[in-house]
Amino acid sequence: MARFTSMEHLRFLLFDVHRVEDLFTHERFAHLDAEQAWMIIESAKLLAEQEMFPYFKAMDETPAFYDGKGGVKTHPQLKNIIQKAAEQHWIGGYASFDQGGMQLPEMIFSTGHHLFQAANNGVEGYTGLSAGSAGLILNFGSTVQIETYVPNIFSGKWQGTMALTEPQAGSSLSDITTSASPTDQGYYTVKGQKIFISGGQHEACDNFVHLTLARIEGAPAGVKGISLFIIPKFRPEPDGSLVYNDVYCAGDFQKMGQRGYATTHLSFGDNDDCHAYLVGEPHKGLTYMFQMMNGARISVGQSAASVAMAAYQASLQYAMERPQGRPAGEKDPTKPPTLIINHPDVQRMLFTQKAIAEGALSLGMECNRLYDLTHVTTGEEKQKHFLLLEILTPIVKTYASEQGSRSAALAIQTLGGYGFTTDFPVQQHYRDLKIMSLYEGTTGIQSLDLLGRKATMENGKALQLLAAEIMQTIQQAAVYPDLQPKAEALEQELHRIQTVLAHLFRFAGKGQIDNYLSDATVFMELAGYIVIGWQWLKQAVVAAEKLAKKDFSRNTQVFYEGKIHTMHFFFRYELTHAEACANTILQHGSLTQVKELEIFA
Amino acid sequence: MARFTSMEHLRFLLFDVHRVEDLFTHERFAHLDAEQAWMIIESAKLLAEQEMFPYFKAMDETPAFYDGKGGVKTHPQLKNIIQKAAEQHWIGGYASFDQGGMQLPEMIFSTGHHLFQAANNGVEGYTGLSAGSAGLILNFGSTVQIETYVPNIFSGKWQGTMALTEPQAGSSLSDITTSASPTDQGYYTVKGQKIFISGGQHEACDNFVHLTLARIEGAPAGVKGISLFIIPKFRPEPDGSLVYNDVYCAGDFQKMGQRGYATTHLSFGDNDDCHAYLVGEPHKGLTYMFQMMNGARISVGQSAASVAMAAYQASLQYAMERPQGRPAGEKDPTKPPTLIINHPDVQRMLFTQKAIAEGALSLGMECNRLYDLTHVTTGEEKQKHFLLLEILTPIVKTYASEQGSRSAALAIQTLGGYGFTTDFPVQQHYRDLKIMSLYEGTTGIQSLDLLGRKATMENGKALQLLAAEIMQTIQQAAVYPDLQPKAEALEQELHRIQTVLAHLFRFAGKGQIDNYLSDATVFMELAGYIVIGWQWLKQAVVAAEKLAKKDFSRNTQVFYEGKIHTMHFFFRYELTHAEACANTILQHGSLTQVKELEIFA
Repeated sequence: MARFTSMEHLRFLLFDVHRVEDLFTHERFAHLDAEQAWMIIESAKLLAEQEMFPYFKAMDETPAFYDGKGGVKTHPQLKNIIQKAAEQHWIGGYASFDQGGMQLPEMIFSTGHHLFQAANNGVEGYTGLSAGSAGLILNFGSTVQIETYVPNIFSGKWQGTMALTEPQAGSSLSDITTSASPTDQGYYTVKGQKIFISGGQHEACDNFVHLTLARIEGAPAGVKGISLFIIPKFRPEPDGSLVYNDVYCAGDFQKMGQRGYATTHLSFGDNDDCHAYLVGEPHKGLTYMFQMMNGARISVGQSAASVAMAAYQASLQYAMERPQGRPAGEKDPTKPPTLIINHPDVQRMLFTQKAIAEGALSLGMECNRLYDLTHVTTGEEKQKHFLLLEILTPIVKTYASEQGSRSAALAIQTLGGYGFTTDFPVQQHYRDLKIMSLYEGTTGIQSLDLLGRKATMENGKALQLLAAEIMQTIQQAAVYPDLQPKAEALEQELHRIQTVLAHLFRFAGKGQIDNYLSDATVFMELAGYIVIGWQWLKQAVVAAEKLAKKDFSRNTQVFYEGKIHTMHFFFRYELTHAEACANTILQHGSLTQVKELEIFA
Repeated sequence: MARFTSMEHLRFLLFDVHRVEDLFTHERFAHLDAEQAWMIIESAKLLAEQEMFPYFKAMDETPAFYDGKGGVKTHPQLKNIIQKAAEQHWIGGYASFDQGGMQLPEMIFSTGHHLFQAANNGVEGYTGLSAGSAGLILNFGSTVQIETYVPNIFSGKWQGTMALTEPQAGSSLSDITTSASPTDQGYYTVKGQKIFISGGQHEACDNFVHLTLARIEGAPAGVKGISLFIIPKFRPEPDGSLVYNDVYCAGDFQKMGQRGYATTHLSFGDNDDCHAYLVGEPHKGLTYMFQMMNGARISVGQSAASVAMAAYQASLQYAMERPQGRPAGEKDPTKPPTLIINHPDVQRMLFTQKAIAEGALSLGMECNRLYDLTHVTTGEEKQKHFLLLEILTPIVKTYASEQGSRSAALAIQTLGGYGFTTDFPVQQHYRDLKIMSLYEGTTGIQSLDLLGRKATMENGKALQLLAAEIMQTIQQAAVYPDLQPKAEALEQELHRIQTVLAHLFRFAGKGQIDNYLSDATVFMELAGYIVIGWQWLKQAVVAAEKLAKKDFSRNTQVFYEGKIHTMHFFFRYELTHAEACANTILQHGSLTQVKELEIFA
């Protein structure tokens, strides 16, 4: 069986670096202990290995496709996967016991999903989407809505989706035009088109529950007039029967990657008989949706990291087995060739992948931990965790997706020409990964969110909290002679980003919003390097502790040495580019606000 | 008709920046003038537009595939394309009149091929490969070999290929085992397997002429025992008939991109009846092959730049037409949306693409000019052009392919979710481009070539010549106040790379070859930034001259302003990363020569 992730790394992140056991001291998670937690992860691995990974290639080669009459053909194994994932609580396991869940911390629930993402990322989408949409109903829906929809989604019978994008409204949700008219029957009737709806129609579920953004007639323009509706494909009637609800799948989108994951075009109310059920209050839909969206952004980041991890593992395996060439300086052609992993450039490609994939997974775990903490803490503590999560969400999403693509390119490169052929999975990882920088807000949108909203929220409180967290790791690292220079280097980067922010805030202070935001994406790249540098230093501190104590109960000595080595690698080969990003931003005069568009010709 | 390149940019490069007209003063090219030259380019554009571009998508969607019995099915249009390209001299046009060519400078011949690459890069491969293999025969083959094969390749009836790679010998050609036994009939019999043979079998040609590397029985081990053979699929008999030559296409490789371009597995001599004709002297095959290989490397670099250019043009067109969102700071959602090209981040993505694609095309043109000059100059001048070409070849190949992939990713990103769908060409550009960093020596191999061979050849003469060329541009730029700071910046980068080289040469001096070469790829990245920075400064100097003289006879004022603007953009957003590469290399102690391989787990 090919290896698609590192269980050693997951154990290290869960127990040593991000200390999931701390959560078990809180009442909500007191039913768990370390051994149980790990057994749950092991069970997810088995499921990923047996039911998902074997179909990774086949689902790419027989893409989901529209049948021309409202249906979307999908791979026969999909039903089995969704069923088994549901039975093993990988759709509803995060929910509390009284909601029909297993009250799992997100740290554990998401680690399970990481295994699915690494094994077969398209398929994980279906289950992740169901989990998220049920969560949205649990949080903001009425008791009746919860009872009607959540158990059916948790059981895998019904598919939950999120329906936001319209042909004219992608990044700009304020331009949504799907309209909802109230009736005196307690429901609304809806009319409109939604595109790019993942899992909007397929063969593995009986019903589809679309969490849909629409505008109630007469609502204010813009985002303040958007409401959230539940729109099932078949509406449950009081007698328990299901009636077709005028939700028609009008087509699909064929894609360069994630080809087994159906992307649909939905048409609501062609026959004026599409009932929609308002969730919460009118005009607050976007606020509600952003709860699911934030979760989805972290999840996309984690998925990108997971695919990069799978590509890393595949290329590592190849490098360990493929003989080619001889050491530099060896002139004797009769000497047997060496394994390519012994070539420095191959090691460079592998360490780059390891640094990106494992670093991004660590940041994802950090986010999941913060998410869990917002649920078990109160007051100022809770607010702290919330703000940290808010500022890290766009970063994990963007770092993992942008650098993950680079990482998967290196996986291809490690295999040479073979990497480009469909005989090996790395080219599929590369294709699949590219969507991650587009899902749930493109890199440009994430960067505007980071600099335009998160960096300024509560007078920069989130930023200050993040800097304090990073400083804490720096102080912990400074104790170890081997880490101390890197602790200093990271502190220098913290000063650097503060200089950059001071430079940018001057524009904001003068109301020059365009100048403030025009290099937001470069700022995002800078922030990504620093935050992942922090995650690597954090891992190195734990590894140094383990080495100092000679505590090899969980992982081997070489494993911990590898973490410190990879930290050094990240600082030398990756973090060095932070300065370049800063220098780009600090130069005067915008080059990207050109009015005379013929300049591009 | 969608635009897939910029004719304005080609005209600028050809006539203003790289001055093709200078070549026309040499006897070999004296039959040409500027007007004719441009008409030839225009005719290539027409061919690309009418016969190639319309099939770009279709050839991806109906990939070349093996029929299970020795044949490879290809798109029906392929024959038409090869025929028309041949008729219009785009296979043999570079050859001299007496060889049946049009005596075109490479600058013009390759610009024609750029148009084909931008329109339909896979298809250009067939014609480019035929051109290169015929060139190899012309240079090193016997009169009989030339007469037998070249006219048939030039006419498009026969396909030329290069057959190097074997299952166990990819990057390491010294491990080739295909064997050739001499006969007393003047030919050799050959036995062996070759893989990854582009165009090795398809439906558009009657015969296939494989320029094959093999080892004559008893030859020395390693690269010094490799000979070059012509091995046709059907061998021409003295009576003019063609006899099957025991060359069997045993399969193909399905790929993530360039799917219309057949990649084959060839088996020679299964029935001990494969005749092979030695080219030149025994054991000198690799030297001969490297002439074709060097041309192919420049061509792959140009192809990568061409595909990046096509992706840029497609994303530019989309950005000019797609309304979405409002300017930053605009709070009124009832205002109509703006075109996305007005968003600074979209301009950043477009300028990055423009800087990469146009910069790499300029470097390609520089190489083609040097190639032409080696053919019309003598003595020291010739040697100078040769050495400059030698050192720039791995750089253009690598910069264009590595940064081209990044550029095409930004084309996808510019389109948002649509960019990931097969409705738009940018995802195909992204997939196609990825092979360019693998073809004809991976990025790792190119980097070893640059640092291990080219940087040290003739005691660093090539490097010195290149530095002198760059200094000349710096001096020309220093005259213009707007360019002067960038001239200084580039000079600083030149000093920086010299510092890096001095650091590395110390390892070489101590015989520490592993330490000398272990960061060759980072050195390559550094060299790429500087050389493309040079190309941009060179373009900016010409643009500044045009603006100063108000000479808008060839292009508009805005066009020239755009070149200077893009130069500034490249220096701020791209060249800034050169320092990071240098800092990576200058740190002490290798991190990529790990012996304990469990560290990667």
